[in-house]
Amino acid sequence: MSSSTWETVAADKRARLEKSIPDEWRIKSRPIEGPAIDLPDRLGILSSAELKITNSSATELVAQLCDGTLKAVDVTLAFCKRAALAQQLTNCTHDFFPELALAQARDLDAYFERNKKPVGPLHGLPISLKDQLRVKGTETFMAYISWLNKPDTSDSVLVTLLRKAGAVFYVKTSVPQTLMVCEAVNNVIGRTINPRNPNLSCGGSSGGEGAMLGMRGSLIGVGTDIGGSIRVPSAFNFLYGIRPSHGRLPYAGMKNSMEGQETVHSVVGPMAHSAEDVRLFLQSVLEQEPWKYDSKVVPLPWRRNEENAINAKIEAKGLNIAFYDFDGVVLPHPPITRGVEIVRSALERDGHSVSPWTPYKHSFGVDLINKIYAADGSTDVYKHINASGEPAIPNIKDLLNPNLPKADVNEVWDKQLQKWNYQCEYLDKWREWEERTGKELDAIIAPVAPTAAVRHNKFRYYGYASIFNLLDLTSVVVPVTFADKAIDHALVDYQPVNDIDKDVHAEYNPEVYHGAPVAVQIIGRRLSEERTLAIAEHIGKLLGH
Amino acid sequence: MSSSTWETVAADKRARLEKSIPDEWRIKSRPIEGPAIDLPDRLGILSSAELKITNSSATELVAQLCDGTLKAVDVTLAFCKRAALAQQLTNCTHDFFPELALAQARDLDAYFERNKKPVGPLHGLPISLKDQLRVKGTETFMAYISWLNKPDTSDSVLVTLLRKAGAVFYVKTSVPQTLMVCEAVNNVIGRTINPRNPNLSCGGSSGGEGAMLGMRGSLIGVGTDIGGSIRVPSAFNFLYGIRPSHGRLPYAGMKNSMEGQETVHSVVGPMAHSAEDVRLFLQSVLEQEPWKYDSKVVPLPWRRNEENAINAKIEAKGLNIAFYDFDGVVLPHPPITRGVEIVRSALERDGHSVSPWTPYKHSFGVDLINKIYAADGSTDVYKHINASGEPAIPNIKDLLNPNLPKADVNEVWDKQLQKWNYQCEYLDKWREWEERTGKELDAIIAPVAPTAAVRHNKFRYYGYASIFNLLDLTSVVVPVTFADKAIDHALVDYQPVNDIDKDVHAEYNPEVYHGAPVAVQIIGRRLSEERTLAIAEHIGKLLGH
Repeated sequence: MSSSTWETVAADKRARLEKSIPDEWRIKSRPIEGPAIDLPDRLGILSSAELKITNSSATELVAQLCDGTLKAVDVTLAFCKRAALAQQLTNCTHDFFPELALAQARDLDAYFERNKKPVGPLHGLPISLKDQLRVKGTETFMAYISWLNKPDTSDSVLVTLLRKAGAVFYVKTSVPQTLMVCEAVNNVIGRTINPRNPNLSCGGSSGGEGAMLGMRGSLIGVGTDIGGSIRVPSAFNFLYGIRPSHGRLPYAGMKNSMEGQETVHSVVGPMAHSAEDVRLFLQSVLEQEPWKYDSKVVPLPWRRNEENAINAKIEAKGLNIAFYDFDGVVLPHPPITRGVEIVRSALERDGHSVSPWTPYKHSFGVDLINKIYAADGSTDVYKHINASGEPAIPNIKDLLNPNLPKADVNEVWDKQLQKWNYQCEYLDKWREWEERTGKELDAIIAPVAPTAAVRHNKFRYYGYASIFNLLDLTSVVVPVTFADKAIDHALVDYQPVNDIDKDVHAEYNPEVYHGAPVAVQIIGRRLSEERTLAIAEHIGKLLGH
Repeated sequence: MSSSTWETVAADKRARLEKSIPDEWRIKSRPIEGPAIDLPDRLGILSSAELKITNSSATELVAQLCDGTLKAVDVTLAFCKRAALAQQLTNCTHDFFPELALAQARDLDAYFERNKKPVGPLHGLPISLKDQLRVKGTETFMAYISWLNKPDTSDSVLVTLLRKAGAVFYVKTSVPQTLMVCEAVNNVIGRTINPRNPNLSCGGSSGGEGAMLGMRGSLIGVGTDIGGSIRVPSAFNFLYGIRPSHGRLPYAGMKNSMEGQETVHSVVGPMAHSAEDVRLFLQSVLEQEPWKYDSKVVPLPWRRNEENAINAKIEAKGLNIAFYDFDGVVLPHPPITRGVEIVRSALERDGHSVSPWTPYKHSFGVDLINKIYAADGSTDVYKHINASGEPAIPNIKDLLNPNLPKADVNEVWDKQLQKWNYQCEYLDKWREWEERTGKELDAIIAPVAPTAAVRHNKFRYYGYASIFNLLDLTSVVVPVTFADKAIDHALVDYQPVNDIDKDVHAEYNPEVYHGAPVAVQIIGRRLSEERTLAIAEHIGKLLGH
């Protein structure tokens, strides 16, 4: 039988993925105890030098790669091996190409040998990529089976620029079918799990990145975010992550469905283990002048003056921060409200001014962005799903409602006008806060999701993240703490304010969530990446990580 | 009979407009000879002091207003009187409110008296506004009869910020019905004429601004541009004008039809008699931090470092400029190609490098933007036209084709994707030019329209202007020369490349166009207002104005 079904195409992909891991990187016998995250150090597959490399920071590594202390080949090999373990332990990979990576690393070492200098600020640093980024000679299928077996013939612009900066590519990470889900589940690889607890989600849609980074299979990974897809997996894996405002980083040449949808732009951004590594990525990309390659990128180099200004304010204990722990739609679980309180009190103890923020019409905003996501009645994503005959994953109804009718152009314009008006009203609120207090409002602290790393198939409410996609404000995720059954007791007598609030409230269970990562997001004005990242970094320091 | 028809509503508006001009500012007997532009100096209605004020530059005036040499009331009165003459001579006004203006001016003088300082960098400077900008207490009807008699209850954001900077508002200028036409004609005021020649158009859609500025009824006016609407009237009236890239200046709170259409954004920008006055406007608005009021504005203050960098290059005779005089679709008339050649040779003589630019797929781009304009099959504009029963002006078929079917959301996304791809390809061409030459390409010199100030109803081809709306590149119009029947002979034996080229070619007549203003536009990268304006200013100096 030569005819292929979606099942055979998926099985072939799984076989190819399996085969991409060399035998000597395979886990032959897995220790019975302990979560996945602890195993790379104990399995004996990475050498102690390789463990040291993968347990470093990206900033430390590039310093050593750029002064010749480390070779690109050694660093690349270490991360290839660790990524192979991450894949075996969390199922977080869509494409793994260590041979291409090692060839790239050898070229970089040869360059360094010849020129006695690095090619760029990321010389020899392996960077993991969400399965949306094209890398010539690899495969990008974004969880649509109909997109398999169509090799990339060119690089995405971001890949071109990272390559110019010296980055090495070795792996593409898992995503949910359609990307419109905050988990990572599809008909090819099944489900990616959380490195800390197999019963919990890695988040999504950049969920494979979350798990891969969580496992230190990479130190910096590239995600995308149209409704929380960078921030939720960052939060669920105790990572830093930035959702830059639209226009800061280049999205051109990446694969996507719903292409050309510009009412709310998906944005690309880094996830990492520290604010410092996030900054390394941003600076390295901006140095390549992405606005000369992608028309949507604003010509804004990394602004040190902005960074200096906010750092001076931090130094002088002069930050003005607002916060909220309830958007009025869905009350977060106790670990999340505690996470906001930890940050609030840390800032206050450090001498800064912290005061409550009143979320402005978030219910309206969340409803509006959900309608925007569903504007084409899911026509485009179903085209890509149906092309192979695969079934839709049940979760896609979360953000894409295929029962909504398709909008016509005047309805699209109406939504766009509503969005703009809402954005301007939010600016008014920000300005009114400043006029009322006579101070500049530096950032807003907010939950990323109503739950700590969620149980599989239990992610229900995207509004904490998606409201800032609608508003296009800069957001940086800071890891805070872990759910603790001894502290985070279930609320008694809470009266939910609506059905989704009731569902989310009912989901909480201190035993089940014990140990799940908890984060907050730091919200800054549009295109305020320098300032907002600096504040996030300071908060991380106050929290001791 | 109490029932009103569109004719009675229009007649009422005309009567109110007529009444807004005080008797002492009325032209009782018009000298027979000479074009309108020469008359204000000869009619005896403005005093010599008022003539001196209105013949100054805005930069000179604000210097004197800010040091107390001039009073806001005197300056305002001078421009009110001159604007009244402009209206009587060119029919360029939609709303005239000298009493509001004089009240504003008195408040500014009182502020100065009290505080011994100006309120802002535009203290007491009257600025004319296209009839899209809301000014509390006035009327914005944008040439739709159905919008008459609905007074503005708030200011547009740009008006708020100009007001904070000290500007005075006194007049709103004429536009064509729908704004999608490069002339100024509608069912209320009829037609605005060119101050230099009543047989020629003032351009459009900011056509009333073109005529008002041409008459020096104002020194800085505010226009908008989605397909040439700032640039064409600037060109047709020997003015400077800038179409900033989208996101540089605040459009929020302005009136428009097709609101929420974001595939190609209409942008707002100043028109003036000098590059210096254009800069004064831009700097004064950016000082007010418009990004805190309008979410679409990029947080980019005026960048003196950019300006200094390009001025150093100008000083060193190191500009790299490309040019074209034919986009491959419609060959411009002889005065226009001569205008490009004048600029090219002036730059070359000044020692800069000037080389030909190959327009990249302009035919495709112009076709694409025309489809974008027509995406809703003109549903929205016809709603506003039909609401009063007025007929559509014949010209609107130029840019809005009501016979095209209405697009659905997937078709809109497809156009948006095509636009982005085309923009990125154009960036590739720009970069390839730089890689090939090893130099930075500073600007491209191009025609604004295929004709000098056109005869009424003869504007056919918008592509020279609209291609840069699609590409969202910064464009500054520089006045160059005037059509000259002694030099600009009609081409013989030209073989048109298509029907529209044939029409435009046939329209040329050296006698008819003699004396019509000729301009070029200086194209810079997206959001390059500082650099591109500095180059435009230098070109103006080389041309001796």
